[in-house]
Amino acid sequence: MSILFEHVTAVTMDPAAPVLRNAFVLVEGTAISQVGHTRPQGAFDRVVDCTGKVMMPGLINAHTHLPMTLMRGYGGGHDLQHWLNDYIFPAEDKLDSASVRAGTLLALAELIAGGVTCVADMYYFCPDIAQAVADSGISANISRSVTCFGPVDDPENYYACRELNAFREQWHGFDSGRIRVDASIHAEYTSFAAPNMWEYLGRYAADHKLGMQVHLSETRSEHLECMARHAGKTPFAVLDDYGVWQNGGVAAHCVWVSQDDMEGMVRRGVTAVHNPVSNLKLASGVAPVPRLLRAGVNVALGTDGVASNNSHGMFEEIKLAALLHKGVSRDPTAVSARQALEMATINGARALGRNTGCIAPGLDADLILVDFTHPGLTPCHDPEENLVFSAHGSDVVMNMARGKVIYENGAFLTLDLEDIRAQLEGYALPRIFG
Amino acid sequence: MSILFEHVTAVTMDPAAPVLRNAFVLVEGTAISQVGHTRPQGAFDRVVDCTGKVMMPGLINAHTHLPMTLMRGYGGGHDLQHWLNDYIFPAEDKLDSASVRAGTLLALAELIAGGVTCVADMYYFCPDIAQAVADSGISANISRSVTCFGPVDDPENYYACRELNAFREQWHGFDSGRIRVDASIHAEYTSFAAPNMWEYLGRYAADHKLGMQVHLSETRSEHLECMARHAGKTPFAVLDDYGVWQNGGVAAHCVWVSQDDMEGMVRRGVTAVHNPVSNLKLASGVAPVPRLLRAGVNVALGTDGVASNNSHGMFEEIKLAALLHKGVSRDPTAVSARQALEMATINGARALGRNTGCIAPGLDADLILVDFTHPGLTPCHDPEENLVFSAHGSDVVMNMARGKVIYENGAFLTLDLEDIRAQLEGYALPRIFG
Repeated sequence: MSILFEHVTAVTMDPAAPVLRNAFVLVEGTAISQVGHTRPQGAFDRVVDCTGKVMMPGLINAHTHLPMTLMRGYGGGHDLQHWLNDYIFPAEDKLDSASVRAGTLLALAELIAGGVTCVADMYYFCPDIAQAVADSGISANISRSVTCFGPVDDPENYYACRELNAFREQWHGFDSGRIRVDASIHAEYTSFAAPNMWEYLGRYAADHKLGMQVHLSETRSEHLECMARHAGKTPFAVLDDYGVWQNGGVAAHCVWVSQDDMEGMVRRGVTAVHNPVSNLKLASGVAPVPRLLRAGVNVALGTDGVASNNSHGMFEEIKLAALLHKGVSRDPTAVSARQALEMATINGARALGRNTGCIAPGLDADLILVDFTHPGLTPCHDPEENLVFSAHGSDVVMNMARGKVIYENGAFLTLDLEDIRAQLEGYALPRIFG
Repeated sequence: MSILFEHVTAVTMDPAAPVLRNAFVLVEGTAISQVGHTRPQGAFDRVVDCTGKVMMPGLINAHTHLPMTLMRGYGGGHDLQHWLNDYIFPAEDKLDSASVRAGTLLALAELIAGGVTCVADMYYFCPDIAQAVADSGISANISRSVTCFGPVDDPENYYACRELNAFREQWHGFDSGRIRVDASIHAEYTSFAAPNMWEYLGRYAADHKLGMQVHLSETRSEHLECMARHAGKTPFAVLDDYGVWQNGGVAAHCVWVSQDDMEGMVRRGVTAVHNPVSNLKLASGVAPVPRLLRAGVNVALGTDGVASNNSHGMFEEIKLAALLHKGVSRDPTAVSARQALEMATINGARALGRNTGCIAPGLDADLILVDFTHPGLTPCHDPEENLVFSAHGSDVVMNMARGKVIYENGAFLTLDLEDIRAQLEGYALPRIFG
């Protein structure tokens, strides 16, 4: 399959040519094969006229919990403990394979319509999540979140690690690496009873060349309690002592990380995933993103689960990432539009070990087209500014994942929305909330 | 004309019945005539089935500069002084009636598609703005912003005051009060050379029963410089000394107001308009909204001009108003979903002296329908939570202003989008930026 995009205005994320105008982009198979101002020779299966649209790399949501989309807005307005104990945990207790599958498909529909082509997920029921992702066409790093609230004698035989191992054997590398399995430690505060588990999982990730997803220093109390437990050591440092980061990692939130943590993250190749909406909604605080960037940390962007957002809208995260730090630091140049776009594209690709996030030959053809003709995107003095501050997921008119058009003009080409609704209304929602 | 809405789920903003389900709402002429669970008797010109949608009052954007939509994203990425001096001021110098008209129509198209039925505007070329608003069908409080950078001998004959007076005579009360003319002092820092002007405009507003729009304590330096100039008096207090608030007022931004200012605002019936996106983008800071609410100040919501946003999306402001203060104060109960919706509806109506912002009999029929069927609004455990944290202007499928459907399913029924585009591309944009 070959698709030629013509009359392309593109925000490429390629520093050599950040904005292209009236260009051609050729996709052959699953990859971008040509980008430039000369029309490629030959016949193509399809030619797409991009007049009035802006192309950019598909967005990468580097931290979420897909099935929690079932809990959108559930128990809103309560304080954190009430919300978790009386709403979220009881709902999670009732999850099963079929409801997780339905919730994941719902999440994927929202993500795809909003321009996401790659996601990092941390949850349970991973084979069900993987099957839904496989069907959807997008890429994902899926991790089985490990918690343990007491000592563990033999990590290798701990149920969550056995699940991880079976899941890795079944799904890691699926469809030329479209699905990757990551290791995951949920967080220091949900596993400090078993530091041998940290050691085991760090080595396991290195042995199998897996990523490592961890919630890191999301709340102040979590950060300080860890330091009290571990002779002043931060969550990053404690986990580092046990070799958790030996194959790099993806650390979600990083609201309270120290300067030393940042330097360690650079040394270990650990990405900080910024989740600005969730951090505000849960009153966790404002992550020190300008300092992370200055320290040289790779900063990616995520929505977190929809229960604490309440959306999978990556364009909202991009806008907020570019706004929030200006206002809080009172520096109008903090986190530029370009930097916010990088977080949502190439930085996410780097975090998840993927050959995407940029429009250039040889990369995976993960691309979106954004309609720039409606009033809210008019006029366009600068496509980057409009993408960051004026665009929204609802402006996405095409989503191409690995060379396959999976969404176009409101139609889902891999997912059956009516069937998803039937699964939700006929089973998942009554089971969990009925 | 009578329109019956049936199978209505409504977020009403009426404390007596905040959420209605399977209700009827009858609109006759320009007003809501019945709301309840019994089907009204009689024949109606139109019956609208609201299954799958949520009705709420039309949104009220209580602070913007409509024609600045022409400058969306213009000069983005520069610091404030560079942005103003090298981009915004030179562009504003080239404005004329026809370009202001085109820019205002563009702004109105964006606002209407995003669910806004009433707006407060502060700018120049007011008759051109008023004509565009008149054509659009929405309501507006339009003010001629007064600045003076030197002494003024005779305020009544100052050119800006003469413009205000002529504008008031021509437009105040147009179409049963759909257009109101407000007085306006741009800000203390742009007029302190002529305090007699403040005195004149305060009295003028009281004599003619006009609102008063002012930029108040937007930046820290503006606030502190005023205090240095006026023996420690804040902008609110100085203007109060000159009688500016004698007929109430609408104070935009209020990022740096003091506790005394808040108490004075309550006494004088002055509304604080929160503009969270603009305050972050321009690095002004975070307004003390929880403290304003605790003090009893009426807090409304605005986008500010699109040059510093870069959008007229009120749903984005609602979400950010509900998120930002939770994160910054680290209190997950700060600014509830309900409070954020109130800011965008009934509080805005109170600020602008309008009989709207709530779904109840006798009020102006300013209503919107939001499509709740797409994945990003599924499931719906709580319509208020979904409206605040999950909805976006692009979900608005009907906008009714004073009983007239002005937008439905993507179609503008009062504005000609092709003609607006032609005015922009054929004249306004080349004139200003060409």
